[in-house]
Amino acid sequence: MAGPMPLLQVGRPFLPRAETLLPYLRRIDEARWYTNRGPLVKMFEVRLAEHFQIASARAVHVATVASCTTGLILALKAAVCKRRGVCLLPSWTFAATACAVSAAGLTGHFVDIEPDSWLIDRRQLAELLTLAPTEFAALLLVHPPGSAINLDPWRQVAVDHGLALVVDAADCFDCVRPEPGLQVISLHATKALGIGEGGFVLSSEAEGVETVRRLSNFGFGRDRVVDSPGINGKISEYAAAVGLAALDAWPQIGSRWRDQADAYRRVLATYGLDLLFPAGSACAIAIVDLGGPHAAAVATELLGEGVETRRWWGEGCHRHPAFADWPRSPMPVTESLAARVLGVPFHLDLTKSQMNRIGQLLARALAHRAPA
Amino acid sequence: MAGPMPLLQVGRPFLPRAETLLPYLRRIDEARWYTNRGPLVKMFEVRLAEHFQIASARAVHVATVASCTTGLILALKAAVCKRRGVCLLPSWTFAATACAVSAAGLTGHFVDIEPDSWLIDRRQLAELLTLAPTEFAALLLVHPPGSAINLDPWRQVAVDHGLALVVDAADCFDCVRPEPGLQVISLHATKALGIGEGGFVLSSEAEGVETVRRLSNFGFGRDRVVDSPGINGKISEYAAAVGLAALDAWPQIGSRWRDQADAYRRVLATYGLDLLFPAGSACAIAIVDLGGPHAAAVATELLGEGVETRRWWGEGCHRHPAFADWPRSPMPVTESLAARVLGVPFHLDLTKSQMNRIGQLLARALAHRAPA
Repeated sequence: MAGPMPLLQVGRPFLPRAETLLPYLRRIDEARWYTNRGPLVKMFEVRLAEHFQIASARAVHVATVASCTTGLILALKAAVCKRRGVCLLPSWTFAATACAVSAAGLTGHFVDIEPDSWLIDRRQLAELLTLAPTEFAALLLVHPPGSAINLDPWRQVAVDHGLALVVDAADCFDCVRPEPGLQVISLHATKALGIGEGGFVLSSEAEGVETVRRLSNFGFGRDRVVDSPGINGKISEYAAAVGLAALDAWPQIGSRWRDQADAYRRVLATYGLDLLFPAGSACAIAIVDLGGPHAAAVATELLGEGVETRRWWGEGCHRHPAFADWPRSPMPVTESLAARVLGVPFHLDLTKSQMNRIGQLLARALAHRAPA
Repeated sequence: MAGPMPLLQVGRPFLPRAETLLPYLRRIDEARWYTNRGPLVKMFEVRLAEHFQIASARAVHVATVASCTTGLILALKAAVCKRRGVCLLPSWTFAATACAVSAAGLTGHFVDIEPDSWLIDRRQLAELLTLAPTEFAALLLVHPPGSAINLDPWRQVAVDHGLALVVDAADCFDCVRPEPGLQVISLHATKALGIGEGGFVLSSEAEGVETVRRLSNFGFGRDRVVDSPGINGKISEYAAAVGLAALDAWPQIGSRWRDQADAYRRVLATYGLDLLFPAGSACAIAIVDLGGPHAAAVATELLGEGVETRRWWGEGCHRHPAFADWPRSPMPVTESLAARVLGVPFHLDLTKSQMNRIGQLLARALAHRAPA
């Protein structure tokens, strides 16, 4: 009796195995220090600083946080200070971005993006800032997965208009570099470097990072006095142990992600398809542009063949009822992208034959559908 | 050459050793499922339900959360729904309680407590609810460490006045029982049952727990649609592994905490001192009433002798600048308690001779100080 076809999953994380955690776990046992910025968390932050080639490799440039969402909330609180107000953000992002804006006590204003860069539409932004120059408190930029971006012009916009700038670089462990301002990177299991749940805030400047760290510990300053209310956004020593083992393995794992993406590109090219975002950065998601508004239909067709896909960012955040009452600018690019891009299976075990099967199924599904 | 006197620490947690984690870690390696409500998190929630003798032992009565603070934020959001408003809470609590109120988008109103029960002053509460019956949205009760309390009258107050009731039972793993409404318990390393960072929300009713669970995953409902914005408040499979190993050891560890407290009481009694809170519940903190406003001075005197103490709840939350603009009722009991109670060293390794030394030092420090 033939069983159901095994599902080819859209993702299949691979985190450090128990054996590689053990040396770190034994250190925890010995120190009996399990959280509250213990020795492994400090070591993990220093190792992250080294990874990003911060000259001093000082942990002052890295604050670990319980999740990327937590990091975004705290970075917004740190950057916006105590002001309430409106935060400009793209709708084309994971729901967590908008949730973080809400949890930081801000209201969002959704802006469209530019079709190639996936960054905020500069014309819309300029118009908004001209029409209502005092309404906005923050600009939350979403760093597209796996792409390097130049933050200079965005910092200039922020300075010119008195906006706090925070960068959601959730899926960008391998393509961010320390810069002024606060960038938040996810260490969720589904990312290229994952620890289960976690994230970190990165900056070339110590001050903002220190504020995030304080806010992640209830806002406690000197003598356990709270000047500005924080939350508990710390990671445990156990989470740091996973992070240290993951960093140990990163030279190999990072290369494997990059090699897998290269192989995938070569296979998909034979079907006239390509992965979005430039090559050369380790990233755990693979997205294809279907050339027309076929994402929902193609997803259903592939699922019928046992291939799971994911519309990672859904139809954009502005479509969630939770954010229906936030103001928004027109969304032609977001709505077009939402309908035409699709996350396809991608992980370190994906074989060439599976890549071929995915390419084949996509090509077949698109053959009888018109481009946009 | 004599070195500095080794510090007798106020707490010294003991969490499961690497060897007891290994069987669970191997399951993680096998499943390659690291978070997002994986098999170990589900098992941990069922095991917690069993621990609390929920007849069905169904995980629907327990939602694990990234921390007790996160649990309080989500429980308040779940209970208060989308209303903003004022939350009544005691000032006599850890700063996290007030931080959670703030992070849930509420303003706090601090109420004093009754001197024996440490629960909210019922006369103050009744007056506030009579004078401004529509101002208040929630009542956040703080469950004193290690004490059983009867929630019935508090539920009645909540029903009578249309208040959401949430219970901060951070330090009460061994003395809560499932009841209607949302109780939030900490699994922080410093608690009797600790996992590093974590907590859970407990209820005899499924609905509120389910809402908390949804809010801990960005608020995603069916088809990944967000109706009400959540955050990422999930624990990883690694945290669940620590929790499962901690529950395995709980019959022994719980007894050891209770035995240690009994021994401590007997020793302190010989110096005319006692631990606050009734015997019989496993709790990882030990607090003594100094009988007069001597906490700060006695703490300094003991530190000079190499004995660390902690004023766990500081001088009350209303004294933090972060909450200075919240309305408050008069605080005579809170201010008196803050000045006269002190957390003394307490952990599973504390020897009788150390207990005696602490009793001796306390008695000596109090001998030349007047009672209140």
